[in-house]
Amino acid sequence: MKIAVLGTGMVGVAIASRLVECGHDVTMGARDAANEKAQAWVQRTKRSARAGTFRDAATAGEIVFNCTRGTGTLEALQQAGVAALKGKVLIDVSNPLDFSRGVPPTLTVSNTDSLGEQIQRTYSDARVVKTLNTLTAPLMVNPRLLPGDHVNFLSGNDAAAKATAAQILRQFGWKDSELIDLGAIQAARGAEAWLLLWVSVMGALGTPMFNLNLTAAPQD
Amino acid sequence: MKIAVLGTGMVGVAIASRLVECGHDVTMGARDAANEKAQAWVQRTKRSARAGTFRDAATAGEIVFNCTRGTGTLEALQQAGVAALKGKVLIDVSNPLDFSRGVPPTLTVSNTDSLGEQIQRTYSDARVVKTLNTLTAPLMVNPRLLPGDHVNFLSGNDAAAKATAAQILRQFGWKDSELIDLGAIQAARGAEAWLLLWVSVMGALGTPMFNLNLTAAPQD
Repeated sequence: MKIAVLGTGMVGVAIASRLVECGHDVTMGARDAANEKAQAWVQRTKRSARAGTFRDAATAGEIVFNCTRGTGTLEALQQAGVAALKGKVLIDVSNPLDFSRGVPPTLTVSNTDSLGEQIQRTYSDARVVKTLNTLTAPLMVNPRLLPGDHVNFLSGNDAAAKATAAQILRQFGWKDSELIDLGAIQAARGAEAWLLLWVSVMGALGTPMFNLNLTAAPQD
Repeated sequence: MKIAVLGTGMVGVAIASRLVECGHDVTMGARDAANEKAQAWVQRTKRSARAGTFRDAATAGEIVFNCTRGTGTLEALQQAGVAALKGKVLIDVSNPLDFSRGVPPTLTVSNTDSLGEQIQRTYSDARVVKTLNTLTAPLMVNPRLLPGDHVNFLSGNDAAAKATAAQILRQFGWKDSELIDLGAIQAARGAEAWLLLWVSVMGALGTPMFNLNLTAAPQD
């Protein structure tokens, strides 16, 4: 499929590269069409890889991944524009992390709202799916780097959009049993708030290469 | 040991009962010495079980468990009083959940602060350890009800206090490898924020009888 990846950071590059590996045509979007990181990615990737502005990418993509930094997401999507996002599955991987007061970061929006909800409210014709924001980039696109099962959450108001996202997640290596549908986009509050715990756990374990699994009691 | 359990709800009763099972002398504290739930617990429990005011309990206990509802915690501790808490290990199991706008709940304090930190700031001579707040009461006190390993976080500024808490947690059935020290009490922000995700996961799984485990990549 034709997929847009907005963002040129570690997450954007990991997702864009993996999508190309999975056979998709990917356009990486940045603020400027001449963005050096995007151009370098195209050079490295060669096949099925293009770069352009946020609007170029969103227009070209049938599906749009938002991999921009959370503090810049709304501006990036504004540059992409309502028309380019209309009706599309918008997979939101971003986290509203604010490092301006140092480490640990705080969240720019939390508790009674989330970045996922802000995006869905602002682009009501887009079909937002929050997913993959709860773990580090290498594991997002290659979950089998961890021994054993672990989980990835999805939330969003459109069931078909979540099914489309799940299809791509399976291509990345996620098992169906590892994909936890949390319901409507409001559940992004919890998935984003997890980052506050994630940062502490990373400190305790000394690596970002971890994820959570869920263990439940056998039910009658 | 002599242990105070502040709070007469599901969490307080579960912890108080398990502490008695483990051989401790427990005083359950409530706003009123005549609290019916506390009296009923003493009746049921018989041995090594007493009830009193928050202050009675905190005074009697060498260790104090705060199992009050998060919205009432600071008032309950105020009733217990600075003198009764001074120098003691104060194990904080509470969550700052606000159900006043219905379900899902929001947090009364989050992101840049936590209830655990508020308690430590207010009672600077107490040795606060945040733990057990991330899972449902039956699993707090009997972790082996779940198949396989899962984790329980500790945070606090006093290493010896965390070691004392860990000793009790081992009596409850927690394995050392399941106890994750997140560092100073500031990490309570993440442990409390987890509740926003916990509520969604409970909805998705259809049971509160679950917990998270951590899976990490093998390190070189």
